[in-house]
Amino acid sequence: MVQITAAEIFQSIEEIRQKAPVVHNITNYVVMNNTANALLAIGASPVMAHAEEEVEEMVNIASALVINIGTLSERWVYSMFKAMRQAKKNGIPVILDPVGAGATSYRTWTVRELINEESPTIIRGNASEIMAVYDDKAKTKGVDSSSSSDNAISIAQKISEKYNCVVCVSGATDYVIEGRKILKVGNGHPLMTRVTGLGCTASALCGAFAAVENNYCTATAKAMAVMGIVGEIAAQNARGPGSLQLLFLDALHMLSDADIKKYLKME
Amino acid sequence: MVQITAAEIFQSIEEIRQKAPVVHNITNYVVMNNTANALLAIGASPVMAHAEEEVEEMVNIASALVINIGTLSERWVYSMFKAMRQAKKNGIPVILDPVGAGATSYRTWTVRELINEESPTIIRGNASEIMAVYDDKAKTKGVDSSSSSDNAISIAQKISEKYNCVVCVSGATDYVIEGRKILKVGNGHPLMTRVTGLGCTASALCGAFAAVENNYCTATAKAMAVMGIVGEIAAQNARGPGSLQLLFLDALHMLSDADIKKYLKME
Amino acid sequence: MVQITAAEIFQSIEEIRQKAPVVHNITNYVVMNNTANALLAIGASPVMAHAEEEVEEMVNIASALVINIGTLSERWVYSMFKAMRQAKKNGIPVILDPVGAGATSYRTWTVRELINEESPTIIRGNASEIMAVYDDKAKTKGVDSSSSSDNAISIAQKISEKYNCVVCVSGATDYVIEGRKILKVGNGHPLMTRVTGLGCTASALCGAFAAVENNYCTATAKAMAVMGIVGEIAAQNARGPGSLQLLFLDALHMLSDADIKKYLKME
Repeated sequence: MVQITAAEIFQSIEEIRQKAPVVHNITNYVVMNNTANALLAIGASPVMAHAEEEVEEMVNIASALVINIGTLSERWVYSMFKAMRQAKKNGIPVILDPVGAGATSYRTWTVRELINEESPTIIRGNASEIMAVYDDKAKTKGVDSSSSSDNAISIAQKISEKYNCVVCVSGATDYVIEGRKILKVGNGHPLMTRVTGLGCTASALCGAFAAVENNYCTATAKAMAVMGIVGEIAAQNARGPGSLQLLFLDALHMLSDADIKKYLKME
Repeated sequence: MVQITAAEIFQSIEEIRQKAPVVHNITNYVVMNNTANALLAIGASPVMAHAEEEVEEMVNIASALVINIGTLSERWVYSMFKAMRQAKKNGIPVILDPVGAGATSYRTWTVRELINEESPTIIRGNASEIMAVYDDKAKTKGVDSSSSSDNAISIAQKISEKYNCVVCVSGATDYVIEGRKILKVGNGHPLMTRVTGLGCTASALCGAFAAVENNYCTATAKAMAVMGIVGEIAAQNARGPGSLQLLFLDALHMLSDADIKKYLKME
Repeated sequence: MVQITAAEIFQSIEEIRQKAPVVHNITNYVVMNNTANALLAIGASPVMAHAEEEVEEMVNIASALVINIGTLSERWVYSMFKAMRQAKKNGIPVILDPVGAGATSYRTWTVRELINEESPTIIRGNASEIMAVYDDKAKTKGVDSSSSSDNAISIAQKISEKYNCVVCVSGATDYVIEGRKILKVGNGHPLMTRVTGLGCTASALCGAFAAVENNYCTATAKAMAVMGIVGEIAAQNARGPGSLQLLFLDALHMLSDADIKKYLKME
């Protein structure tokens, strides 16, 4: 069984802070600001670029690519394909966030095509989104999870094996799955679900960790642990979702070895 | 004369918290994040989707549709028509926010066409925006209100009667108008005008209330009262527009029966 | 040598607060909300509009136009040209922010074409962006500055002379350049680099100051001084980039004559 220690997580954070890897995001309008701020807070260098005229060149200066389908449209989907193809050519990790997959056939179709054509390195979504990637019977209520995690885990394993990628099913417990291997992250706080886009932030942080670590399963688990730990720290002083969002960025910026050691719940 | 009590307002909030209705927004880039966060804070489930490929399907899982023309362009306008048509077909309420109507002929034209073709359930704007919906002589200074409310009220009544919808003229006092009926909401705080998009948030909250209450006039008045009350609570501890924005979300999340009772100014 | 006093800076702020000039922004998705909020906090009236159908009319009601290429695409670039042409025709100042110039040839090409065809009044960017505007050998790491300021200053002087505009090279020290004239602003705080879009905010504030002052060199220096001073004030109580962002807006809203006098570092 894999064991990830607090010290190893903090080492990755220090590497991110030192290298400031460029993380290229093609993401949705709702969360762009928060995503950029979270990447800055952890020490990475975010870029946002979606034009077909420039996505390949932007991928060329990036150490990871994060694709998020939260507010799709035709030209953006075209650029997503183009950017993913270039990222694979360059050998950098590609993180896919299937926001709202299952809610509309356009989202489900897009995410399946993206996976089929340009298999990503890491897929992170909630249970219903992960199920929709694979299973036509999965239903999504908007972009929030409603499906049980158990079904999602077995589907995540199938996706991982078929596409040779890491799949993260996030929720109260996050499951990081690579083939038969499962890492469970127990960190997080319920108030996080009342702030829009923290799932998208998690995917972006997977990009930052994958930019400095070749073991993508470990990188994903570290990112999810950091998300949850920072959320817990922020929630201690938050009086609602407004202050949580602010305190989250502050805590992410200041995250220490001792914080991680104190809060980490991983098995 | 209609009387809405604090208890009735709180009952609607509890219904929103329990049902978590999906509110589908086609809104502007500036406020998407805030709008989603406000809907989450009150307990609703926001979705944002603008692609013509998916808006109808997204409307199918929604309990209300909010259309906001703050940052228009051709494809988005097309999707707005498509989404409104589907919403009417499904019998769910449509809230229209004519941001900046009167500032450019494109906005004025778009909003009039939307109203003519797919008459919305609720229209919420400031005095100059509401006047521009109906009257070519109304002038807008950007997206801020400058016209007197009195003219706007009589125009709002004409719009309400002609299109059989609720019209809300927001300002220091909010006027909620349905035919000859007028409800006045006196809540709010001047600092709210220094935070971008709180008008858009008001329209989105109208969507949340209209999702759980069939009397759309009452639903609109409740939403406006909650906006104003939460703004007043937030302003008490705000040191400027930055902290107001944060405290607004916190207060909306924690809003209690007693808060509403204490602050409500409606006649 | 030019001397700008704290009293002169505050006088411009009072003029902005009184006149509430409309500042029209065609900017990137990441920062739209922050930019609008910063303009509101200083007392200006922000509008955001990018549709080719309306940009000229929106320019007609504006006192300054701010063009920011942070998230480009074809239709937006077309609208930028159109808006800049109208702004020049109307004689209002045009501020150009070449976000990420040098990172991709699309950005570099776009920004050069914009400058060649519709020479802006003020160009504000970090060292590597300013160099990329002029020099093919300049390289950008994403949207963050990495080039030395010294080279950038001499290039900024060339740009200023060739295009008859003010060029601001921002960084730890901000250099405001008009021909041979150089103003240096020493205000600011390192934590500001961990919040996305504060450079874009600086460009927008240049728009607000240029809307009330015809000496665009002075207007730019004032805007940069206010940015830096407000950043320093905010950083005193910030516990990270999340709180910095909030406190920045609060401090900008409340900025006094005494604050400016206390902090101003300009030569």
